[in-house]
Formats: sequence, C-alpha cells, structure tokens
Amino acid sequence: MTPKPDEWKPTIAIGEVGAWYREVDVVIVGLGCAGAAAAIDATRAGAEVLVLERASGGGGTSANSGGVIYLGGGTAIQKECGFEDSPEDMFRYLMAATGPAPDEEKIRVFSEYSVEHFQWFVDQGVPFKAVFYPHYSGEPPTDDGLVYSGSENAYPFDEIARPAPRGHVPQVPGQAGGLLMHKLMATVESSAAEIVTDARCARLILDRSGAVQGVVARLDGEWHAIRARRGVVLCAGGFVNNKEMLGRHAPQLLSCKYRVGTTFDDGCGIRLGMAAGGETINMSYGSISLPIIPPKKLQKGILVNAQGARFINEDAYYGRLGEYAVYRQDGRAYLILDAETFDRPDVEREIAGVGESVEELESELGLPQGSLQSTLALYNRHAERGADPVFHKSADYVVPLSHPPYGALDCTTAGSLYAVFTLGGLRTSVNGEVLSPLGEPVPGLYAAGRTTSGIAAPGYSSGLSIGDGTFFGRRAGLHAARRR
Amino acid sequence: MTPKPDEWKPTIAIGEVGAWYREVDVVIVGLGCAGAAAAIDATRAGAEVLVLERASGGGGTSANSGGVIYLGGGTAIQKECGFEDSPEDMFRYLMAATGPAPDEEKIRVFSEYSVEHFQWFVDQGVPFKAVFYPHYSGEPPTDDGLVYSGSENAYPFDEIARPAPRGHVPQVPGQAGGLLMHKLMATVESSAAEIVTDARCARLILDRSGAVQGVVARLDGEWHAIRARRGVVLCAGGFVNNKEMLGRHAPQLLSCKYRVGTTFDDGCGIRLGMAAGGETINMSYGSISLPIIPPKKLQKGILVNAQGARFINEDAYYGRLGEYAVYRQDGRAYLILDAETFDRPDVEREIAGVGESVEELESELGLPQGSLQSTLALYNRHAERGADPVFHKSADYVVPLSHPPYGALDCTTAGSLYAVFTLGGLRTSVNGEVLSPLGEPVPGLYAAGRTTSGIAAPGYSSGLSIGDGTFFGRRAGLHAARRR
Repeated sequence: MTPKPDEWKPTIAIGEVGAWYREVDVVIVGLGCAGAAAAIDATRAGAEVLVLERASGGGGTSANSGGVIYLGGGTAIQKECGFEDSPEDMFRYLMAATGPAPDEEKIRVFSEYSVEHFQWFVDQGVPFKAVFYPHYSGEPPTDDGLVYSGSENAYPFDEIARPAPRGHVPQVPGQAGGLLMHKLMATVESSAAEIVTDARCARLILDRSGAVQGVVARLDGEWHAIRARRGVVLCAGGFVNNKEMLGRHAPQLLSCKYRVGTTFDDGCGIRLGMAAGGETINMSYGSISLPIIPPKKLQKGILVNAQGARFINEDAYYGRLGEYAVYRQDGRAYLILDAETFDRPDVEREIAGVGESVEELESELGLPQGSLQSTLALYNRHAERGADPVFHKSADYVVPLSHPPYGALDCTTAGSLYAVFTLGGLRTSVNGEVLSPLGEPVPGLYAAGRTTSGIAAPGYSSGLSIGDGTFFGRRAGLHAARRR
Repeated sequence: MTPKPDEWKPTIAIGEVGAWYREVDVVIVGLGCAGAAAAIDATRAGAEVLVLERASGGGGTSANSGGVIYLGGGTAIQKECGFEDSPEDMFRYLMAATGPAPDEEKIRVFSEYSVEHFQWFVDQGVPFKAVFYPHYSGEPPTDDGLVYSGSENAYPFDEIARPAPRGHVPQVPGQAGGLLMHKLMATVESSAAEIVTDARCARLILDRSGAVQGVVARLDGEWHAIRARRGVVLCAGGFVNNKEMLGRHAPQLLSCKYRVGTTFDDGCGIRLGMAAGGETINMSYGSISLPIIPPKKLQKGILVNAQGARFINEDAYYGRLGEYAVYRQDGRAYLILDAETFDRPDVEREIAGVGESVEELESELGLPQGSLQSTLALYNRHAERGADPVFHKSADYVVPLSHPPYGALDCTTAGSLYAVFTLGGLRTSVNGEVLSPLGEPVPGLYAAGRTTSGIAAPGYSSGLSIGDGTFFGRRAGLHAARRR
C-alpha cells in the first residue's frame, strides 16, 4: 500500500487500504507516561493492545522529566507527612489556578479520583518515600516523596483553598522521571500489550462516516495498515520541538531558551487528530518555568519589569512567575536584591547590574529614571512592618531592601533560563475522546498527555502534565477498550 | 438528499451526493465585505459566481461597523490631506504593531498594493472626502475621509515608522459601514454574480482526495448540493456570538460587555474550514476597544491597574489600551484624573471614586495603601518637565495631576464598555487558500475576513478588519476563479 505521508492531509479512506497487516482492538501511538497508562488500563480491561513508539525505546519526555506527579485529596503520602487535604481543596485550587477558562469537568474528576490514582502508581511498583521536602518548591534533589509544586501556599491561592503539597515524587535522588517510566513500562512489558519501537504513525484511516478505523505506520522500514477495531489513542507528545508550529501557535515560547521535550515532540499527534476532525484549544499556552529559587532566600528580592515596577508576588510558583514574565511583561524581568538578601542562585544567572545606590542600579539596568527608586521606596515602607499589601508576598520573605550594594539578576528571556513545553493540543472529553468543534467525539479516536490540551493551560503547577497524562491516559485506554 | 447538518463533522463525501442542484464555478459563503470583494473580483475574472448569504440581506457585521478601511502607502486621500506615507512605513508599522508573530508575507502584499486597493474602492463608487479629522482617533462623527485609527503616532511606533493616518472612511456622517456595503453590494448586484439570501451553508462536499467540490446548503427551505467547479470561498464572519466557542478559545472576550457582530458570527465558517482540514490560528485574540477618548483631553489622565500602577502610554490607540487591560491586567483598570484634566467622556463611564486627596481616592478605589500615591508622585515629578520617561506618552498629554479633587473613571471590564470581536480563525495563504497544519492548501477551499485569522491578531488598528477582509477577499475570489 501507498501511505503517502507527505500529502496535505494525514488521513486515508478505508477504501484505499488494500489489506490489513495487523488487526488489534486498540492502537496506542506513543509510549510516554500517557501511552503507558492507556496501555496498562486498556489491557487490563481485556483489549488486545498494540503500542507504536517512534523512538527506539519507550519513555518519551516523561522519562527525562523530574517525575513529579500532581496528586492530592488526601493520599497516603500526604497523610503520613502530616498534611490534610481534600478533593474539594484540590478542586478549588486547580479551578483558581488554571483560569481564565478552567476545565471544570476534568478538574472535578481529576480531584475526586486522585487518591485512587495515587494507589494506581503504587500498584505499578512506583515507590514513594513518606518524607516532605521543605526547602523549596518544584523538584527535590533528595529522594523525598512530597513537595509543593505549585502556588498553593502563596497569594491568592492560600486564601482560596487550604494549602497542601501535592507534588508526589518517586523515590530516587534527583530527576525521578526515569524511575517512574521504568516502572510503568515494566508493567506494560509484562502485560499482554505488544510494544513496537521505531514505529512511525503517519496517517489515520477513516471510514465513510469519518470514524477512525486504524493507522498507517512504518514498521521495520515498511508502511503498513493496522486496524484498530475499537480505537486509536494518540499519546504522541506536544509540539515544543516544532519551530514552525511553535511560531504559529505559541510564538512567545520561541523566545525561551530551554525547550523541554524529545525530538518527537513535533506535534505529529496533534496534527493527526486535527486531520480526523478534532479541535485544538489553548494552543498559545505553555509551561514556562522561571526558577528564581533555590535558595528560597532569593524570594526576598523583588521582580521588576522594564518599567522598574513589580508585577507579581515573588513567592508564587516558578511556573506562575514565568507565565507572568513572558505573557504580560514581554520577557523583561530583573530580580532586585540588596547586600543582605543576595545569595548565589542554584540556577546559573547573569548579574544584570550592580550599584552602590538604587539610583545607580536603576541607571545601570536602563530603567526609567526614578522608577526603581519609587518601587523600592513603596516596598520598603511596607516591608518595615513585614507587609506587602501590593502583591501579598508571604511575610516570611518580606524585608526592606536597603543595604547597599544593590544588584539585579537577569531574568529576561534573552539572558536567562526559561524552561518551556507546550500545554495546548486536542480537546478531549473526560473519557479521553477527541472532540470536534461541535463538541461531539470523533468516533474511534482518543488522546491523552501533551497531545491534548492540559488542564493547566494556562496556570501550570509541576506534576500536572504527568498527572493529567496518566490520569486521562488511563481513562482513554479504558474507554477505547470498552467501545462498542 | 440528506444533509445531516447535525452530524459530528460538517463534511460529506461526494459519493453521497445524489444529484447536483446547481453547478457554478465559485460558491461564496457570506456577503459581508470579504464576500462582496471576493464576488466582485471572481466575477470580473470570468467565473460564474453564486453567493450564499444566511441573513435575509447582505452586509453582515461590515454594514453595522464604522466603515473604517486601513489603507496607506500614499493614497490619493493621504496626499490631498498633506500626509506622506510609503508602503515601507506602513509595512514597518504593521510588523511592529501586530507582534509577537506578525504575518510578514501578508503584511508585505497588503502594504505594497494598498494604493491600488484604495483605487478599487473608488472604482466601486465608494466616496471619500479628502479632509483629515484631527480631533481624535478611531471613527469620526463627521463625513471626513481620513483619521488616525491606530497607534502610529504614539510610542513606540512613532519611532519605528513615519506616522501617517491610515483610517480611510467613506463619506457619510457617523458610522460609514452601511454606505460602504451599500456600494459594494450594488456592484455585486449589477454584476453577473447571483446572490441567494436566507441560504444556510451547513456542509462542505469533499472528494476522495479531500478536495472541496461544493457545499450543502438550504435554499427555500430545502437542502441542496451545489457544485463549485473551481472553489468555495468562506466569508462567513467570526465567532464572537458563539458563547461556547468564545469560552473555549477566547475566554477573556467573554468578560467584555459589548460584542460586535451579527447573530451569524457564530463560527460556522471556521468550523466548516476545520472539518475540511484547515488549521486555525490566533484563536484567543480579539479586537478589544477601550475608548477613554473623546475628548482627547482625557489622555492627560493616567490608567492604573489593580495595584495602582500604570501599564501603558495612555495615548496609545484604544484597541491597544483594551488588549493591555484585558490580557495583561485581567480587565482591572481606572483612569485617574484631577480637577484640571477631568472632562465628561463621550462614552458613558461610571465614576469609580473621588477624593479630596490622592490618598482618599486610593482608599476609595480599594488600591493598596500608598500605591497610587507612589505612582502619581513619580508621574508628576517627570510631568513637571512635560516628560514621561516610564511609558513615553506624548508631551502634549503630560501634565502634573495635582489639583484636587481627584477622580477615577471605571475602565474595568466589569463596569465599563469594552467593544470586542474575534480576530482568530482559519490560516490562509496570501491568495486566500485555506492551509492545513502542514501548510499546504486544502484543495478548492478559500477564506477571507473574520473567518480567517486577521493580520492584526493581536495588535488591532481600526480598519484592519475591513482592510484585510476586502484585500484578501479579492485575492481569494480571483484565485478561486482561476483555479485549474
């Protein structure tokens, strides 16, 4: 058969398929965390599953990640670490953090079944150490199992929902994504599911009604038509490594230096879904990390923009800092410190300027005359009383910045590290069905992970990508397995 | 035949078409300014043209608009009014104003052929009076023919390109869209093109290769298949009046009170194009007008956000003010004035607060203590010398605000008028071809106007919607007429 993967539309009519090379119940495209979760739960539901992975081995971007999983509502680890949490608090936080149009239905089930989802990881043999890592938010350097991975304990979220750490981290020092995927892939490999690597899926096969009936994929160098009796699940990653797509849909991310993803995060899964009639949403949003800590002490500084004005509470999570800096300040930001608050940042950062006086620093940074002086005067006046009525930074990090010399760390996209990946993608139902612009499922087509729009687009907290990828990956796999 | 317009995907295979009710060269869906332009130029190129309009008469949103057309590069009207302009200056302004990812190819041809496009309007009998309206930017209340309709003469654009007014307005007092559409429709009606009103186009007919071969439309209450031998041109407006689509794609616009569009701006054209394989871009962007003037004097006030800080030069165009207020300040903005600068605004606005002192006003607005005082102190210090080094407002509007009482006009989305319409839509080539996610034309499918992504998404200047709608509408019509 002729796959013609370079035609303008990556679909093919079933009538053009000469013979099926294989027939299975469910084809899963991609073996990152979402594909693994889909494979595990689809197989468990009794389906014959074939997983096609484009790389020479599974893992994807998940395996190269920090491995943080956003879970809560009162997991065993949260309890053992002494934190109270509830599905309602988790729901309220996520609804507030992922505005302006949070996906209420998804956030509801994601919060409601999060304790069960935690147990699922334990069942796959993923180990978690019941120790809370207190030193900063994000990814712990230790093997501790729980960490704050969002802005739960920062304004305004601390007033909206009871704060609890929800970053669950597999037990291994440092980057835990490798261990996580090792465990998930071991389950897939020991199951009845078949995994084929170096397998590129180039087209979807549609019947006359537009329902997806299979895929055209290259296995062992040959193009073949593979029938999926019940469904195809697209778990092929995002598009952060496709510069053209990024330029069209999320140009702000192009200005950021560090793009998190594999070569295969080129949007192929999203394009397949679109060609079959799926709608994309939130394409302009990404996870944008601007880590100003560790050490936490640096949160005592103030972030200012190109007008020398503050724009956020500096103790917000680094994902929120990055979004505000890039989308609202055009990537122009400096962290202002004095002699008492300065510390060497763990993430290498250039010093953008120093001055014996605020005026001198302001001038060195090229900020408008008087602007930084005015900002610091107001900040310091309130800081004398440990207060920040303007942006509500926690009193723990509010001290007057009045000890010369003053310095500024470069937090511009031009000069410093911003780690980004895409959050937009196919619109899916809570069961992982790819939805058309009219909100109806494309028959036979499912998707999960960064091929879909994440529940945190915008408003990222770490762990939400593996969190929603596995959670909705499982539901997609299960739903596909049970179709008809 | 059964059109099944409610199926999940609004396409139908050519094999399902029993008999063609009509066959023409080019079908144009929608008779606003883009559809009219497409019809005129397609007919002139010798094509047999059928225009299907959903309403009982043509005109669409264009007919209810201000009728401003963004044209430049040295039109006869610009010259007669004493303004120098060049295609290069127009290009440079549009490239700078429509970031972060301006469509360079479209902006190039739009600027290069703008003088010719002006002549095209004259040829259709659209009258322009060669008088410049100087009192404010946007839509003149008089019948004057030229006005500033963007931020050309405000920072930073005045330093990037030689400023020139490019808002060309048909000669009639007040809203000129009616006259404009009257003239364009008269040309269509007197041409060989056929117009059918009350005609809803519900599906596109595709052949096996995915090429568009016609439409399914309801004429006189019956569903019919109509063959388009050369092409279908979608000119069916945007989606500002589809709340669900707006909520998914441009939720910020939902918070704005005044949505500019007809009932039929429900995204139907965009959905047809997507179903046939077209890609959408810039879906989150809209034109967002926050008119703080007239009278121009009000630009002497300062716009502050919920932290009592300025965020833009107040003499920027009201489209730019609106975008910054909504996307970057969550729709929280107040215009601060003193006794000398206050004037009654033409657009009805609530007074959000008054105070005998800045401190009192600050408190009344619920702004953080000291914030507005700090902002005004810095502003006034520079204003004493007529300067605004922070946001570079023109010296014409920079005076110290130091005469009590002080007042604030409500410029929040909650309390005041923001006029919005969508700018995102189908991605098209410079010839109006609808493009797939891989950048290749969907064979036989064209689009123009707000069914497509505008060249000003984001970064609106008034007149760009009618400007790019007619300009690329003509090219789409011509290209469709000449296909094969």
